[in-house]
Amino acid sequence: MILKALRYGMIGGGPGAFIGNVHRIAARLDGLYSLTAGAFSSDFHKCKETAAELNIARAYPSWAEMLQAESALPADERIEVVVIVTPNHLHAEASISALEAGFHVILDKPLCTSMEEAKAIREAVHAAQARGLHFCLTHTYSGYPMIKEGRAQVAAGRIGHVRKLYVEYPQGWLSTLLEGDGQKQASWRTDPARSGRVGAMGDIGTHAFQLLEYVSGERVTEVCADLRAVVPGRALDDDGAVLFRTASGASGVLIATQVAAGEENNLRIRVYGEKGGLDWQQADNNSLVIKALDAPEIRLRAGGPGTSAISQKHTRVPAGHPEGYLEAFANLYRNFAWQIAASRGLHEADPDLDFPGISDGVRGMAFIDAILRSQGTFVPLKD
Amino acid sequence: MILKALRYGMIGGGPGAFIGNVHRIAARLDGLYSLTAGAFSSDFHKCKETAAELNIARAYPSWAEMLQAESALPADERIEVVVIVTPNHLHAEASISALEAGFHVILDKPLCTSMEEAKAIREAVHAAQARGLHFCLTHTYSGYPMIKEGRAQVAAGRIGHVRKLYVEYPQGWLSTLLEGDGQKQASWRTDPARSGRVGAMGDIGTHAFQLLEYVSGERVTEVCADLRAVVPGRALDDDGAVLFRTASGASGVLIATQVAAGEENNLRIRVYGEKGGLDWQQADNNSLVIKALDAPEIRLRAGGPGTSAISQKHTRVPAGHPEGYLEAFANLYRNFAWQIAASRGLHEADPDLDFPGISDGVRGMAFIDAILRSQGTFVPLKD
Amino acid sequence: MILKALRYGMIGGGPGAFIGNVHRIAARLDGLYSLTAGAFSSDFHKCKETAAELNIARAYPSWAEMLQAESALPADERIEVVVIVTPNHLHAEASISALEAGFHVILDKPLCTSMEEAKAIREAVHAAQARGLHFCLTHTYSGYPMIKEGRAQVAAGRIGHVRKLYVEYPQGWLSTLLEGDGQKQASWRTDPARSGRVGAMGDIGTHAFQLLEYVSGERVTEVCADLRAVVPGRALDDDGAVLFRTASGASGVLIATQVAAGEENNLRIRVYGEKGGLDWQQADNNSLVIKALDAPEIRLRAGGPGTSAISQKHTRVPAGHPEGYLEAFANLYRNFAWQIAASRGLHEADPDLDFPGISDGVRGMAFIDAILRSQGTFVPLKD
Amino acid sequence: MILKALRYGMIGGGPGAFIGNVHRIAARLDGLYSLTAGAFSSDFHKCKETAAELNIARAYPSWAEMLQAESALPADERIEVVVIVTPNHLHAEASISALEAGFHVILDKPLCTSMEEAKAIREAVHAAQARGLHFCLTHTYSGYPMIKEGRAQVAAGRIGHVRKLYVEYPQGWLSTLLEGDGQKQASWRTDPARSGRVGAMGDIGTHAFQLLEYVSGERVTEVCADLRAVVPGRALDDDGAVLFRTASGASGVLIATQVAAGEENNLRIRVYGEKGGLDWQQADNNSLVIKALDAPEIRLRAGGPGTSAISQKHTRVPAGHPEGYLEAFANLYRNFAWQIAASRGLHEADPDLDFPGISDGVRGMAFIDAILRSQGTFVPLKD
Repeated sequence: MILKALRYGMIGGGPGAFIGNVHRIAARLDGLYSLTAGAFSSDFHKCKETAAELNIARAYPSWAEMLQAESALPADERIEVVVIVTPNHLHAEASISALEAGFHVILDKPLCTSMEEAKAIREAVHAAQARGLHFCLTHTYSGYPMIKEGRAQVAAGRIGHVRKLYVEYPQGWLSTLLEGDGQKQASWRTDPARSGRVGAMGDIGTHAFQLLEYVSGERVTEVCADLRAVVPGRALDDDGAVLFRTASGASGVLIATQVAAGEENNLRIRVYGEKGGLDWQQADNNSLVIKALDAPEIRLRAGGPGTSAISQKHTRVPAGHPEGYLEAFANLYRNFAWQIAASRGLHEADPDLDFPGISDGVRGMAFIDAILRSQGTFVPLKD
Repeated sequence: MILKALRYGMIGGGPGAFIGNVHRIAARLDGLYSLTAGAFSSDFHKCKETAAELNIARAYPSWAEMLQAESALPADERIEVVVIVTPNHLHAEASISALEAGFHVILDKPLCTSMEEAKAIREAVHAAQARGLHFCLTHTYSGYPMIKEGRAQVAAGRIGHVRKLYVEYPQGWLSTLLEGDGQKQASWRTDPARSGRVGAMGDIGTHAFQLLEYVSGERVTEVCADLRAVVPGRALDDDGAVLFRTASGASGVLIATQVAAGEENNLRIRVYGEKGGLDWQQADNNSLVIKALDAPEIRLRAGGPGTSAISQKHTRVPAGHPEGYLEAFANLYRNFAWQIAASRGLHEADPDLDFPGISDGVRGMAFIDAILRSQGTFVPLKD
Repeated sequence: MILKALRYGMIGGGPGAFIGNVHRIAARLDGLYSLTAGAFSSDFHKCKETAAELNIARAYPSWAEMLQAESALPADERIEVVVIVTPNHLHAEASISALEAGFHVILDKPLCTSMEEAKAIREAVHAAQARGLHFCLTHTYSGYPMIKEGRAQVAAGRIGHVRKLYVEYPQGWLSTLLEGDGQKQASWRTDPARSGRVGAMGDIGTHAFQLLEYVSGERVTEVCADLRAVVPGRALDDDGAVLFRTASGASGVLIATQVAAGEENNLRIRVYGEKGGLDWQQADNNSLVIKALDAPEIRLRAGGPGTSAISQKHTRVPAGHPEGYLEAFANLYRNFAWQIAASRGLHEADPDLDFPGISDGVRGMAFIDAILRSQGTFVPLKD
Repeated sequence: MILKALRYGMIGGGPGAFIGNVHRIAARLDGLYSLTAGAFSSDFHKCKETAAELNIARAYPSWAEMLQAESALPADERIEVVVIVTPNHLHAEASISALEAGFHVILDKPLCTSMEEAKAIREAVHAAQARGLHFCLTHTYSGYPMIKEGRAQVAAGRIGHVRKLYVEYPQGWLSTLLEGDGQKQASWRTDPARSGRVGAMGDIGTHAFQLLEYVSGERVTEVCADLRAVVPGRALDDDGAVLFRTASGASGVLIATQVAAGEENNLRIRVYGEKGGLDWQQADNNSLVIKALDAPEIRLRAGGPGTSAISQKHTRVPAGHPEGYLEAFANLYRNFAWQIAASRGLHEADPDLDFPGISDGVRGMAFIDAILRSQGTFVPLKD
């Protein structure tokens, strides 16, 4: 692609952050971005520390100052993209401000903490789009090649009309009251003031939800949920399960838990239709198993025979050289850069190079809203 | 064991039956049973055909006649055990009659078709036990060595207090309206008159339910279910998912479906506690994966190092020689014979050599009752 | 099958034996055999002990006496089949005598301990065949349904002309000098007087060799081997690797070791041809993976869609109910009984119901002979 | 790390190249390198095309001109590192010249095409090291965290004294005469003029060899090989197997083939010692299975509990977020940059941050030499 690396500024991602570094690697991987400025922390000392580590000259004491100062720079110097990787409670204000200041925005998920915020961001995104600006919400998992393959297979009718969906995201790292020890990742994620109304469901449940709608093309219309705070003393849910139904008559189960002790990050999605099914799990992310009613199971491999153009466009090395989470993340960044370049007339837009955006974010908030309304309809079992 | 092979008579299991043959293999495997009589079909011609194939001299036109005639034979000639493998609607009457006629009974699951029947059978079993008779309900999966290992590990506190349970039993064979073509297995299982009030939930959901209580030692106290007849024209549920809670405060999800097109028989159970978790699936039945919060995953193997005496007593060959479904089934038969022999004073009873019985059956019926009462509590998702 | 259970007598298989019990289970599984007599041990006391445990009336002090006494019984009482499960050094004499005495013979592998013995047995088998007697050598692994499927797929040209073969049989149980502690299985297998000229290569290498020729249809013509006694103090090889070439120009590697500490019984075979390959391993014995040059990998499952009639005839339960080692063993017994019944005119012979015989045994001895002749042709690596 | 991104120039890696792009991604991933100049192709037009795609201003018509011109630039402008990704026949001359011109060198494997070249490069590397220059040979697989973990476990005595080693690298992509169609990757790899005396053994066999010595700490002293050109018309070996012995008395098998039709890149290594074994395969690169004689198998996971500091230093994201081939490659680049920075006194050297170098390269050439000398010592198998 004939595109000079996009200059970007990062909000959040200071010392101890996990996802900020992931974004930076994703931005680097294909050479399409250049980290130019940062408001890495609300503590300016820490911000400068991170800037120094990264050899970044333009460190700002706050994101508001970054937006203002960068806007004032000449067009060929100022940042073009703002990447937001703060805790959830800052998502709405920061992303709306960045869009209004004329920057493309890449925002870490979940979109925000309420439907009201979600609608405000949607409005800002739509207004910005009219001015040629783009918005990406980093639901990483939709960047995996074999997830895109799964979506393509369902869309092409490979498994027939969809009937059943099972998506699960078990983690174990919050099995103890880590926030009691001040662990940074645990602390903000379990704090209603920074995480929002939900814990696990916002953190990983929205990922699972986005993935199920993305792969299957189904839209969830009804939910029946059981959210729980399993670890004593925890303020937000660390566990949940949701029965759901879709507009087309399919149904399924979504599981998201952070108290499955011993589990890492075992995201898995299975979709069954009239003629077959598909099965993908992050632990074997370069494979997609396709099952059929009357034929043996096949295992598609990233970049391998039988895959569609869409997934092939999301691999970098020949089949058998495993790619992973960082490459999936980088796919979102690559596709976003491609979209910006297309807007600039540098090449044709390519609909295969998609990325999650505002509608995924709003759906996620609607999902959270619905499950919070659905609690408590069990009947006793008696023998 | 110094026990002459137990003479048994079979009710059901004629031409086209699946489970009848499984019972016969299970009975043969350890040489502890001898098939002596049969009322294999309500069609006497077919019954005699099966008897001839099996080289069995005593074929009866009905199970009632078998019970009567065998009772009249000398003690050292008549059958000692009655094995019942008919469709569900005959379970109650046949098993009660057999017990009352003085025979030990091995009954295929589910116990019966209603709580009323369940209670009547329970009464008969208790009365019979007072007379030294035993009753086994063949929930096969509890006979797997690594299921017993899982139960032992939970009981020993390996994973700590149980918090989460996930059990799933996906099959795909009823993805089309097989009963429309008269396929024997599909026809009775989807027919309310022979299967009872539920389809998939009775056929495989009760297996999943028994397994979860057996492995975890938990007792389910509340359920929230979504049962569905997915295939158009089907009279009973072919799919379902159940959220549940247990007496000790744990919770979980049970999935049973027969419309996961392309799936075989993919029973899996996962249990997580405060300190770790365990994971078993039938497709790799000789392994039990144990996860821990702060230690690497280990994989116990049937008969291998680190396993307990209880699972070792349920293997026949050294580790690495795979055993499977028929051996698990045979374990129930072996343990039942051992129990009878212990009653006869031939050796000590061994509590490790257990088998599912009347209480498992009553629990299963209570589970069915509860999920039938719990339908319909979804809320809309709106964006 | 309309066949009265075949009466058989067993030579070997007394207290502490592993394989004797496996044979007895295999014989029981389909109800086609009845254990009627036994010379279970050279120690008559132990023999009677085993006979009592098994409820067998006819215990003999020696196999010679068993052959003689049984021959003298009326035809409808005497045994019809002799099963030989002794250490290797007795195989030749016992099997030749049994055949000459007019019995069908099932012999545990390896055939014997030398080419001279092998040729003598071959002569006896051929003479006996002329009199309507059959001979089976229990190379168990060829009884697995998915091994038969693999053979069928290669024969049908699925992978094209065969080019590469990899077969490996790693075990770890002889990683220490178990024979020093008198462990029964280790003691005879590592003793030249009872095991013969080779240890691991006779015990498991011959299995691997039979499997590679059986599945691929290739005939090995040249070998280059490295046999080793890895554990200090061991008298026979406990480890080996063999490069080989076949008549059709293919080549490959055979590995058999009993010092791969931590391994159970991890037999695996891979065959590659011009168009694709296949991969089977005992640890997942109900699957056969088929790879192709220009198509995605498929996974055939025992009894599942896409399998051939031959493998389907070697399963007992629907796909997804795992069968294993004992069922594979029982397939040899079933097929042998079927062959005897066909000889008696009870039904048509079925070429799909095959079992390993004298030619497999002679090939195995020729393999041992060749590798013993091939030792010692390494060159130094110098930098 | 406080290090300005290292400026590097690339030799090779023009249109159609595979490994050039991999190096560029690896260089970008951690932000420690900046591609500044290139002699990407012997065709200057193609070179400029690649330079334009990559937004690189300094494109050179030949590598010699690049070395000369860059040497003439001021120290803070000229490249600091030369990356060589040409076919093998250019490795020696280009790397020696680059070292002599005062640049650090990263060279793609194999080192070169003969022992003579290898010794000349070794001399140049040693001379350059005396002047503070470093040399890296990109044996990628040694950059995987769980390979480093395996090496650490062996070194710590986890499996005891090493006895057996099995390493295999099966690919299928050369199953047909691709070079006949002019496919770029196939063409040079199968051409003696550009690849050297060996094909598959140089391309992937040297990787397997490096890995086995790296993980086990063993040194191969003797080999017995069978190299073959399986595909008709091919000039170099596309397949081989090697029996080997090590200085400490261990032995093993190395397999490298490019005609295993249907295989991708299935590198696997197993090492067994007196007390246990370990098993790693690229297809599941984030796991390391550890087996033990008397304990259950455990599965270490990259970044997970039970891993050593050394492997933890080679992961970027928490356990369960899969990393892969590109990250392994980037680990070599990161460690090389770290070493340069340590030489410059920017921080302490860290012996855990190693990378393959000249001695790995010389060993690889010695391995090729030895297997070329060892051919042809088979004996016939006769029955």
